[in-house]
Amino acid sequence: MTSDGVRFEPDRPFVSPDAEAVIRVTLAGICATDLEITKGYMGYRGVMGHEFVGRVESAPDPAWIGKRVVADINAGCGSPHCDSCMRAHGHHCPARSVLGILGRDGAFAERLAIPLRNLVAIPDHVCDTAAVFAEPLAAAARILDQVAIAEGTSVLVLGAGRLGLLIARALATRSRRVSILVRNPARTRFVPPNIAIRRTDDAVERAFDVVVDATGSPDGLAAAVRYVRPEGVVVLKSTTHAAVPLSTAPWIIDEVTLVGSRCGNPATAVDLLATGAVDPRDLVTAELSLERGVEALALATRPEHVKVLLRP
Amino acid sequence: MTSDGVRFEPDRPFVSPDAEAVIRVTLAGICATDLEITKGYMGYRGVMGHEFVGRVESAPDPAWIGKRVVADINAGCGSPHCDSCMRAHGHHCPARSVLGILGRDGAFAERLAIPLRNLVAIPDHVCDTAAVFAEPLAAAARILDQVAIAEGTSVLVLGAGRLGLLIARALATRSRRVSILVRNPARTRFVPPNIAIRRTDDAVERAFDVVVDATGSPDGLAAAVRYVRPEGVVVLKSTTHAAVPLSTAPWIIDEVTLVGSRCGNPATAVDLLATGAVDPRDLVTAELSLERGVEALALATRPEHVKVLLRP
Repeated sequence: MTSDGVRFEPDRPFVSPDAEAVIRVTLAGICATDLEITKGYMGYRGVMGHEFVGRVESAPDPAWIGKRVVADINAGCGSPHCDSCMRAHGHHCPARSVLGILGRDGAFAERLAIPLRNLVAIPDHVCDTAAVFAEPLAAAARILDQVAIAEGTSVLVLGAGRLGLLIARALATRSRRVSILVRNPARTRFVPPNIAIRRTDDAVERAFDVVVDATGSPDGLAAAVRYVRPEGVVVLKSTTHAAVPLSTAPWIIDEVTLVGSRCGNPATAVDLLATGAVDPRDLVTAELSLERGVEALALATRPEHVKVLLRP
Repeated sequence: MTSDGVRFEPDRPFVSPDAEAVIRVTLAGICATDLEITKGYMGYRGVMGHEFVGRVESAPDPAWIGKRVVADINAGCGSPHCDSCMRAHGHHCPARSVLGILGRDGAFAERLAIPLRNLVAIPDHVCDTAAVFAEPLAAAARILDQVAIAEGTSVLVLGAGRLGLLIARALATRSRRVSILVRNPARTRFVPPNIAIRRTDDAVERAFDVVVDATGSPDGLAAAVRYVRPEGVVVLKSTTHAAVPLSTAPWIIDEVTLVGSRCGNPATAVDLLATGAVDPRDLVTAELSLERGVEALALATRPEHVKVLLRP
């Protein structure tokens, strides 16, 4: 298997990496984007769900059949003439579909289909409860591709929600100076000891090299700009729906850089899980059967819940 | 003279680089920030003006006296305990003054004072009309410190005003693929042949590696985001006063990076002028005596004018 998912073996015919595998879903996770989609985000119609682990039930390349997998949720056109597919693994292909978000039925189902090239196999010692975090952990670790984060880089994560907690853990694999701003005291138990807990009144403004807005709130960006130092970096992870009034003058005066950050490489996430660098399993606060999906979505909006899983 | 402006010569006493020189202003330039200041920007009270060339009239270090100079307009505290002064030449020092903008009388005057360490000498072959562009050209070239721009990087500058025209010229010293969006046909004569002229209807959306917003308009940022490619960079140069409604979701979905960009190093600008890499003199559309300052500010708001100079 080469890195782009294409096999060339003399005893088997060529299989297009565009060809799709069918996965039987073992576990799926609910994320804030799903909750936004229920409110109309992206205008998506279809089966929701983009966090999953499953087993390959059928595939044009028989080597995949029976394998336990996660997948890159972005399916680009894959053409060698598509700049986006050549540059960014199809994450920005204008013709892409995105599992459970854009033009492709998702993981809150017994089965889903995804191109062969998107599959990432899960090592046997990584359990399903960890593997189901591959997609959000990849999105968290995406920041490490985009922003220079070293051992001494001071980082503040705003928002101790599903994604914020994963981001803090992912960035703490690189920096010894990661803090997370926690508003809800019940969330402190999900912050491991290598990450500092800050309250609104003990986080120093204009002090952090990197601030990540994972609040999911329209106020998050302005808060992030308050905490970042001049010439620092603000990472935007909260896709809030509505336009909000923003004053850009402080960004220019303080020469702040703002980095929009979306999906990551699930293979990176699987490595973090396989080495034990990140163990997200304690973030699971409920697991419901797929038939109880509506109830599970409601649970996921409650502050006492972090990751709610669905089992088909 | 060492690079930080401190001399150590056995026959002269130590002179603090904080000590100030008095400059007799030869020429000063009017910029959009001055026009904003007249409308209340920064709440500044005092002598305006931050673009100038002049001659050192008095200085605690006699080696400077009589020299033709420009200067870094940001005067930081200079303390070795100040992170900003150590990291960014005082451009982000919380205790800084800024010539004609913040706590320091400016260049629309016969004389101004500025710390010795801020001075940059002008080579004899660079005339005053070129040298007076050192400050805005430094601000334009600041982008080259912040964003990776190579020969093949496609750049679109939005706004063919005073600053936009300088930015396009500065970036064209590094990239062969610089375009500028020109709304006012009268501005096309200020665009040199190595820079492509685009109209609103022939600039392709989602196509440019780097887009610079130098429109000075609250709509500039949204337009810049439309023209930049996914994973591209938008540089913000327009300090508009008011908060505007902005939707950040497209920045995140397309993983756009936004870079706030303010002042640059005047020594870099003097190099660009001295080598002839940038020749801005054709941008001067009027030169008035200092007593006609109010009239000059009014002229500078008119679309047929680019750079209006004042001569004390």
